[in-house]
Amino acid sequence: MWGGRFSSRPAEIMQAINVSIGVDQRLWRQDLAGSRAHCRMLAKQGILQQADADAILGGLDAIESEITGGTFPFRDQFEDIHMNVEARLNELIGEPSGRLHTARSRNDQVALDFRLWVRDACDRSVAQLKGLQAALLDRAEQHAGDLMPGFTHLQTAQPVTLGHHLMAYVEMFGRDAGRFNDARVRMNESPLGAAALAGSPFPIDRHMTAQELGFDRPMANSLDAVSDRDFALESLAAASITAGHLSRLAEEIVVWMTPMFGFATLPDDLTTGSSIMPQKRNPDAAELVRAKTGRIMGSLVALSTVMKGLPLAYSKDMQEDKPPVFEAFDALDLALNAMTAMVAALRPNTERMAAAAGAGFSTATDLADWLVRELNLPFRKAHHVTGAAVKQAESLGVDLSQLPLAELQKLEPGVTEAVYKVLTAEASCQSRQSYGGTAPEQVRARIADWRNRL
Amino acid sequence: MWGGRFSSRPAEIMQAINVSIGVDQRLWRQDLAGSRAHCRMLAKQGILQQADADAILGGLDAIESEITGGTFPFRDQFEDIHMNVEARLNELIGEPSGRLHTARSRNDQVALDFRLWVRDACDRSVAQLKGLQAALLDRAEQHAGDLMPGFTHLQTAQPVTLGHHLMAYVEMFGRDAGRFNDARVRMNESPLGAAALAGSPFPIDRHMTAQELGFDRPMANSLDAVSDRDFALESLAAASITAGHLSRLAEEIVVWMTPMFGFATLPDDLTTGSSIMPQKRNPDAAELVRAKTGRIMGSLVALSTVMKGLPLAYSKDMQEDKPPVFEAFDALDLALNAMTAMVAALRPNTERMAAAAGAGFSTATDLADWLVRELNLPFRKAHHVTGAAVKQAESLGVDLSQLPLAELQKLEPGVTEAVYKVLTAEASCQSRQSYGGTAPEQVRARIADWRNRL
Amino acid sequence: MWGGRFSSRPAEIMQAINVSIGVDQRLWRQDLAGSRAHCRMLAKQGILQQADADAILGGLDAIESEITGGTFPFRDQFEDIHMNVEARLNELIGEPSGRLHTARSRNDQVALDFRLWVRDACDRSVAQLKGLQAALLDRAEQHAGDLMPGFTHLQTAQPVTLGHHLMAYVEMFGRDAGRFNDARVRMNESPLGAAALAGSPFPIDRHMTAQELGFDRPMANSLDAVSDRDFALESLAAASITAGHLSRLAEEIVVWMTPMFGFATLPDDLTTGSSIMPQKRNPDAAELVRAKTGRIMGSLVALSTVMKGLPLAYSKDMQEDKPPVFEAFDALDLALNAMTAMVAALRPNTERMAAAAGAGFSTATDLADWLVRELNLPFRKAHHVTGAAVKQAESLGVDLSQLPLAELQKLEPGVTEAVYKVLTAEASCQSRQSYGGTAPEQVRARIADWRNRL
Amino acid sequence: MWGGRFSSRPAEIMQAINVSIGVDQRLWRQDLAGSRAHCRMLAKQGILQQADADAILGGLDAIESEITGGTFPFRDQFEDIHMNVEARLNELIGEPSGRLHTARSRNDQVALDFRLWVRDACDRSVAQLKGLQAALLDRAEQHAGDLMPGFTHLQTAQPVTLGHHLMAYVEMFGRDAGRFNDARVRMNESPLGAAALAGSPFPIDRHMTAQELGFDRPMANSLDAVSDRDFALESLAAASITAGHLSRLAEEIVVWMTPMFGFATLPDDLTTGSSIMPQKRNPDAAELVRAKTGRIMGSLVALSTVMKGLPLAYSKDMQEDKPPVFEAFDALDLALNAMTAMVAALRPNTERMAAAAGAGFSTATDLADWLVRELNLPFRKAHHVTGAAVKQAESLGVDLSQLPLAELQKLEPGVTEAVYKVLTAEASCQSRQSYGGTAPEQVRARIADWRNRL
Repeated sequence: MWGGRFSSRPAEIMQAINVSIGVDQRLWRQDLAGSRAHCRMLAKQGILQQADADAILGGLDAIESEITGGTFPFRDQFEDIHMNVEARLNELIGEPSGRLHTARSRNDQVALDFRLWVRDACDRSVAQLKGLQAALLDRAEQHAGDLMPGFTHLQTAQPVTLGHHLMAYVEMFGRDAGRFNDARVRMNESPLGAAALAGSPFPIDRHMTAQELGFDRPMANSLDAVSDRDFALESLAAASITAGHLSRLAEEIVVWMTPMFGFATLPDDLTTGSSIMPQKRNPDAAELVRAKTGRIMGSLVALSTVMKGLPLAYSKDMQEDKPPVFEAFDALDLALNAMTAMVAALRPNTERMAAAAGAGFSTATDLADWLVRELNLPFRKAHHVTGAAVKQAESLGVDLSQLPLAELQKLEPGVTEAVYKVLTAEASCQSRQSYGGTAPEQVRARIADWRNRL
Repeated sequence: MWGGRFSSRPAEIMQAINVSIGVDQRLWRQDLAGSRAHCRMLAKQGILQQADADAILGGLDAIESEITGGTFPFRDQFEDIHMNVEARLNELIGEPSGRLHTARSRNDQVALDFRLWVRDACDRSVAQLKGLQAALLDRAEQHAGDLMPGFTHLQTAQPVTLGHHLMAYVEMFGRDAGRFNDARVRMNESPLGAAALAGSPFPIDRHMTAQELGFDRPMANSLDAVSDRDFALESLAAASITAGHLSRLAEEIVVWMTPMFGFATLPDDLTTGSSIMPQKRNPDAAELVRAKTGRIMGSLVALSTVMKGLPLAYSKDMQEDKPPVFEAFDALDLALNAMTAMVAALRPNTERMAAAAGAGFSTATDLADWLVRELNLPFRKAHHVTGAAVKQAESLGVDLSQLPLAELQKLEPGVTEAVYKVLTAEASCQSRQSYGGTAPEQVRARIADWRNRL
Repeated sequence: MWGGRFSSRPAEIMQAINVSIGVDQRLWRQDLAGSRAHCRMLAKQGILQQADADAILGGLDAIESEITGGTFPFRDQFEDIHMNVEARLNELIGEPSGRLHTARSRNDQVALDFRLWVRDACDRSVAQLKGLQAALLDRAEQHAGDLMPGFTHLQTAQPVTLGHHLMAYVEMFGRDAGRFNDARVRMNESPLGAAALAGSPFPIDRHMTAQELGFDRPMANSLDAVSDRDFALESLAAASITAGHLSRLAEEIVVWMTPMFGFATLPDDLTTGSSIMPQKRNPDAAELVRAKTGRIMGSLVALSTVMKGLPLAYSKDMQEDKPPVFEAFDALDLALNAMTAMVAALRPNTERMAAAAGAGFSTATDLADWLVRELNLPFRKAHHVTGAAVKQAESLGVDLSQLPLAELQKLEPGVTEAVYKVLTAEASCQSRQSYGGTAPEQVRARIADWRNRL
Repeated sequence: MWGGRFSSRPAEIMQAINVSIGVDQRLWRQDLAGSRAHCRMLAKQGILQQADADAILGGLDAIESEITGGTFPFRDQFEDIHMNVEARLNELIGEPSGRLHTARSRNDQVALDFRLWVRDACDRSVAQLKGLQAALLDRAEQHAGDLMPGFTHLQTAQPVTLGHHLMAYVEMFGRDAGRFNDARVRMNESPLGAAALAGSPFPIDRHMTAQELGFDRPMANSLDAVSDRDFALESLAAASITAGHLSRLAEEIVVWMTPMFGFATLPDDLTTGSSIMPQKRNPDAAELVRAKTGRIMGSLVALSTVMKGLPLAYSKDMQEDKPPVFEAFDALDLALNAMTAMVAALRPNTERMAAAAGAGFSTATDLADWLVRELNLPFRKAHHVTGAAVKQAESLGVDLSQLPLAELQKLEPGVTEAVYKVLTAEASCQSRQSYGGTAPEQVRARIADWRNRL
């Protein structure tokens, strides 16, 4: 392939480490789109005769048919997707095929193909995130008023509603989608026409190809165009942060499903059994979603490491950009779809959740706040009194709402019967009407906001 | 500190692992700002009496003076910056201090402080990136027409100009600044008022505190507000990608400065010597910039790992959010400043660069392009002919521009004397007039574009 | 410092990025030990006169006193610990101080100091791991027969004993100690005498210094000695794997302590409260241990990234080797100590654990095994029958041991009354007598094995 | 597959995320080996009748033939390699197939298979590392006396020999092999017989299966056996450190091959050309080796992240253990083979290296050492004098060995003509006779040592 200068064929190990067609054949759609745009531009600019252009475009159509039809011969000997397409084009249309590579290099070609792929992947992730948010919104609306314990440190903290809890993830996934969108905007410049690294002496029109391929503009520096992969790193970072959010919700599903919590179940078709323990219903999908975080973070580390310290312009190291990106987005794709299915199908045990919401002195803060509000105690003092009340209730084996008034008055004489109104989980939730708080009205208002935004 | 319920003091190891004041005292400015805003809002809403508010604000001013004056007693026994400030406030103003924590929790307080710090760090990074771009623009303008070899695989590829090369980094650092800006916009929502996790029953005004602290709006979900750290992760990802770009430029400086290249030197005040080899002038600053990439990537991995799989809402794991972020931004700060200094001070050996630009058959592509343009050869054929010409020149020990016409005509009879006009490095550069190409006019036009944007 | 060749002092930013005394002053002990050994060797070999050697050794003693007494002036202007010590030595003893650096370079000096530090850190980690194992063994012995549910996927799988569960960690931490030991053996070669990179023309005795510093031998290649940091990477990897194990046990403590499990509590002195919720007792120490995994993994990534692709021999990048290593071992130190304290103090609620062990059809596998053993059913068939039995029990709202014989016989006619003997959690545990199984005798035998090994 | 209890089939997304046969079919050899050992043991212990055992063993042989013959039907519907084999066994031999799973679970089965695979991978890596060391030894012997510049900071430091330089890597790869060997010893315990997590009530003989499968002993705790993957992490860490070493040598090959260095070339069959620049000979293999570091580090991060914070025993997250391990060892395999080929084929330009070795004041340290040795100057003083000499030589445009005696004497009157004997690169190398130094005799002695060890 290397033309007239090489005197021997590559060694076997050279070919083994160099070949990438097994990986980059996924770029075929992008490669064809880029070649078509390049071909049309060459013709329009008079660099290519129209007849040659027509032959090439016809050949590219034939190749597309072969690939979608499963008959295209992907061959290791041609290294990568670009050379496989070019070689096949030559077999199909002969001499004009050799004119397609005018004013183009594999360096800008692969930069283009990969960028197009990543752009699509970001768009797909955004769509999936919106689907997940929609599923969460539906469930949040359904459970906007259902009580559950809000945990910190996995200890009962204050009652919240399940709807409020689910809406926290709507916020997170909303920011995740924002990150993919921002990455997309930033990467949406065309590297095509950078050629090997220095631009081209042919009178090419980079704005034309950029526009045809849906880019906002051509990249402004040819060296940068062929040698940076920050668009891939940024997308991997967005994927990694998304995966982190998914891992948290997945963890919660696993925890909610353990019989010790019993907060939720999943239908049979989203759980699996055991090869040895016939009673098991395992939250495998949630665990796998949680695990995908590892793959995706690993991919980010992989590509960051690859790029570290590379001098300009293209180095072959960059061929290792695709496997981590493909793997990360494959993992994210599965994880988002699986999570959406789980969210839609989750069966919360609202009774058990509500019971837990009221236990464990979950309204202690409400007592402290009452002392501040009604008796004008400084918060720190109220906090101290409440701690003593909890201790007393614990030693009597009762909950705060069952602690006799006399006991409370021993600790703070000003306490009155009215205090018991704030000591139920329901009252606690209801009272938290601050913007973004867990009061059902607040939760419903936030759901409405999001319905408008999606 | 934990009020009325605990019967024993923390174990020594508990305190050792729990204490964070050594790290988070860096948040004192943010903590005071948050407390002031919270205090004013409580007063305006009638939750706090104006006299108490005044006492608190006075106490906070006194604390600021103590800290800036170096007399503030940071004490391990009070764990963190929040408790240190609160304890000191109590010592200074007594009872009213206990009212400041009304309708607030350390959970939203630390989320606020940290977010404010990260926001500042992003702003500082953007400013530094612009400074670095400005330095690069100046040098690029100065060397817009100076030739150097463009490398791929560190092999001579095609001549470019040094200005063009430097402009590639202007593009990269421009995108880096964009990432910090996007992160800033996304994080610019106030967590204050989320309280522990569920919001507050007091009639607080979260929009007021948000506005006072420069946020666009309050966060819309209290659980999300206290339990997510994606703003820190996104900022670390932006820092990591920036560091990757810096590592590449640093690598180039190291390579350019090796005597085998001799492309550039740095003045004495930006190099170091050796404890044993008196002749050395080492590019230590460039190497340290390159190495900082490791610290920053490590920080991203650290925090991503910390957050993985944590159930809502706050878990103490999150206390480990600050060290990696502080370290990463300290490293980035040094790296950006050092790189800016190096860029400004770099002394390119333009003669040596120009000589190298013309060697190594660097205009082979120009020959191939000439064959396409003038003789209408398909590019693939032209590529092959050129390869043979290079082989022939190599065996004769001459450069392409010195290869006799007869030799060229043996390979392709149509070649004429005119071909030699495209075989110099200067002509090669000059010819690459495509948008974003290395022709000096193009480089200068891109510099002008950036001058307008900065 | 750089002697006669430099014409200007370092720029401010150069000094800021270059200085390391704030970090590497922790190496003072190692630096003094290395200098003493080097000095004695130089004297013995006649390279240094005994009087000079005595002066130097005296000066080094004085420096040690200053450092331990807190009066040593660590100064940024001298960059690092080596130059600080050397400069101070010069102030203390004058001219002979200049002779200590004969046949030595900072390159082998820092390689030595750091290696000695890492060796100590590995030894300390091994000792701490043994302490943790000892604590686990004590608790395992105490609870060798106490039932708890064995989980897979956090679903009840089969009953195990708490002792058995804790012994799993004894195995893990045993392997962790093995990794530190292996790393120590591998790193135990002396770099001293490699000088800058090429060895020394002085008749030094590297075997003598190696022996004095407790090394098995000198390193066999001077370039390797000054340019590799794999001993640090291996130690970080061992630390990272250990941290991973700790994170799992920490997760379990967090989960066991949530009121939904109620499997265990920690005494007050190992938990913390809340600034707003007076009832909280949070497992902060366990969460912080879990989080330290992030720091330690991040450190491994940081140093791996730093070292990637560095040409031989020493590059300044390597100065970034120490912060991640110091941070990782500080984190590991805290985590191991905190975990040991928690293991010793943990208060399991054995009743609640035992009750859970018998619930959730945890003996389903025992039913299947009985069908195989007594009725000679193929396991796959037995598994199927048991699944149907579980389904039937579930629909009747009873546990397997309460399912009427008639119901079982509907599914498999051969079932007899004898089956009920295997359907209790206690019988299940007792029956698993295979080597390494959960039967209390097995657990006690493994505890005895470990007592012999530690 | 889940027997009698599930009422619906898995959802499509459940299957998509759950299926692993595409990945774990690589474990077929290990799965068959484990099943054979388990089957023989069951028969010997009387748990299985001999006739059934024979049928099973026959069926497993048939399956092996099908797999090696390419006719085995790998089917997604059976999830993984274990179920595929079991399902096929059932088709081939009917009822007895259902008896093979007695006293076994997929949990110990997969732990076994994967451990066997990783053990093999470690063994293969050791063998490849030895091959690489052998190639390096051959080249080192050939060039034991050939001069090259020793660099620090990529600045000329002191002359070394190419043989010495290559031997540095022999040391590194020797330690790498040691790490794989240590990992192998530590992992060489059999998990088989741990069953699901608690051991088995059948009278199995774990020592017998352990021995048959080449293990040193059975693992001592059944929970540990099924839930830890530290053997994989340790192997990945060893792979990652090895890859780091490879990346350094790869970087050097890239640097040596750039025309600015011109230190070495590779034959055509180990380089590649360009699709656009016909003159290029690119060190792609070296760059790809360098890049593989990223993949391998990424794999380590991936699996470390997956395992973080998982409670015992098996969780489905662990299914994500195999892809990173397979990828890392595939990458390492290619990288080691490619590096061995490059080392064997590398063509150093020894003349150019030698010329560079003598340039750049590379013998300045020799001058300083001479001043110490012959004039008894303290090293620090000698260092200063030499720095001034270098400065003077630089300003005169000569090398140190060409600096007139008078100039030297101006700086230090005691200098004599004899000093010039130490100022050549050859003399410098020759003089460094300290153990592990670069003197050719030393290099040859170290080569001999290694020849004995390999």
